[in-house]
Amino acid sequence: MEKLAYEEAYELVKEEIQKALTKSPRIINDYLTHLSASQGKMIRAVSVLICAEDEDGKINPNAVKAAAAIEIIHLASLVHDDVIDNSDLRRGQETLQKKYGQRTAVICGDFLLSLALKTLSAIPDGKQYLDIRTTDYISKLCLGELRQHINNNNVNLSLTEYIRIISGKTAALFEASFFTGAVLCNASDKELKCYKQIGNYTGLIFQLQDDCLDFDNTIETAKKPVQSDYEQGVITIPLIHALNSLPTFKKKALEQGITREDVNQAVQDAEGLAFTRKIIKKYYNKAEQAINRLHVTEDKRGKLMEILKKASGTMTAF
Amino acid sequence: MEKLAYEEAYELVKEEIQKALTKSPRIINDYLTHLSASQGKMIRAVSVLICAEDEDGKINPNAVKAAAAIEIIHLASLVHDDVIDNSDLRRGQETLQKKYGQRTAVICGDFLLSLALKTLSAIPDGKQYLDIRTTDYISKLCLGELRQHINNNNVNLSLTEYIRIISGKTAALFEASFFTGAVLCNASDKELKCYKQIGNYTGLIFQLQDDCLDFDNTIETAKKPVQSDYEQGVITIPLIHALNSLPTFKKKALEQGITREDVNQAVQDAEGLAFTRKIIKKYYNKAEQAINRLHVTEDKRGKLMEILKKASGTMTAF
Repeated sequence: MEKLAYEEAYELVKEEIQKALTKSPRIINDYLTHLSASQGKMIRAVSVLICAEDEDGKINPNAVKAAAAIEIIHLASLVHDDVIDNSDLRRGQETLQKKYGQRTAVICGDFLLSLALKTLSAIPDGKQYLDIRTTDYISKLCLGELRQHINNNNVNLSLTEYIRIISGKTAALFEASFFTGAVLCNASDKELKCYKQIGNYTGLIFQLQDDCLDFDNTIETAKKPVQSDYEQGVITIPLIHALNSLPTFKKKALEQGITREDVNQAVQDAEGLAFTRKIIKKYYNKAEQAINRLHVTEDKRGKLMEILKKASGTMTAF
Repeated sequence: MEKLAYEEAYELVKEEIQKALTKSPRIINDYLTHLSASQGKMIRAVSVLICAEDEDGKINPNAVKAAAAIEIIHLASLVHDDVIDNSDLRRGQETLQKKYGQRTAVICGDFLLSLALKTLSAIPDGKQYLDIRTTDYISKLCLGELRQHINNNNVNLSLTEYIRIISGKTAALFEASFFTGAVLCNASDKELKCYKQIGNYTGLIFQLQDDCLDFDNTIETAKKPVQSDYEQGVITIPLIHALNSLPTFKKKALEQGITREDVNQAVQDAEGLAFTRKIIKKYYNKAEQAINRLHVTEDKRGKLMEILKKASGTMTAF
């Protein structure tokens, strides 16, 4: 098969996802079509494609299937996530579980997962398919979700444990994207390790940036559910820092309970967002160093830096 | 790798499943260990192993991983099933969703699915692994679940639609088991088709037999949840037949609603169980004919017939 230019590959990924979501058996089609209307910016798919670029900037066509599969895994995780969090809105649209019920959403999430793995198994090169090992990353994703669920409303949650949660919940699939792309451009074992690190840091940054957004944005601009993380029991770093810095606030949290207003005030007093952005910067530097260690063209290096900037919110369009 | 005798392979499957369920990361271990205490009779794993037997009665060691994977997929489906049906008991034991909550059960089901696919991908022969195409069967399983959920409490459910439901819900994984075993003993395309048919019929029979049991057994002997199928809104063939044969009963069902006692009486009056057993017998004969079409040793043919008998409840021990 002939190698693809980036733009061509990107369009094919979109087509592949649309096809998967709208050409399923009639009985499940309505539900999946509902989902296809709210596609995000596909940062994971973009990561797969960019990482898969060879020295001529061309992409192994297997990357199209792999990128689509990872986006569908992400979608499956969102569907089950909304069941777990009992969320009503996602990307400004009613969630599957709100519209059709929790039970339907559980089944649709499972179906999406099987669809993703089916898409992946359509990669004709058996060896490359096997090397991708997506299921390892799905396991990590589940463990992150579980860790988050167990720590729901835990005001004693430590910074380290929070990073462990998001390493699974968010960074695992980013790592999978970078790793998959690297496998598809035949990277050496040493380079593969490097791509995995970049993916992991990028995922952590993406989540931390999203956590900050939850605090400083209005509903409209963030296109997130009306309920904030805090109202869903999810304790993120800005709040962890406030709890660690303000003993009377923590005492109140433990003894009386705190309101959303208390949380906002405390995060402001403790400069929780600035603290979080310092951590983002730390991971950003590590990711940049890892990108510089790769033996890639200047063009590819630039594109990898663009993904990193996009994840860290210092760039609005890719 | 050396081929295995049946007993040896069976023990290895049990070990493989136990290992998967009890050696996972600490955070999820409690939940999975709870599940490992209620292992069933592994009829799907047994089917993989028997179908994988060669002319000397020996088994390709890859069948161990495949059989364990299919049992774990089955377990994952039960965990999500219990969420969907809001069930409290399974095989006489408290369900995961009852003991730890729906949200934990959703995540554990997802994790089990990834664990199953990971177990499967440990098959060193890439080609055989790819040929098994388990994800196709997982999709079918999900569609069956969805079809059942949509038809919950539907007293107008037709016989044909019910068979479609259980073709996905139950027979898909049986078909996967037979097909997988056949792939692992290098069956020809024509024989593969035959194994798939046998698997499909065996699965249908297994489910229909289970449906009959739901009517004529007490809780203790069936080790099923206290709630019957009917109380969970699941309409099965004995009841479909009663609804089709007794117009006044159907009218009552549509207009006033019916109690469990009404259902039992109607199924008895319409001889719903005898009707269902006739359908079982029809599939049994088809399966037997398909088994006879296979070019296998008398010993293997006998073992395939034993699985069939076990599924149809005409034999209590395998």
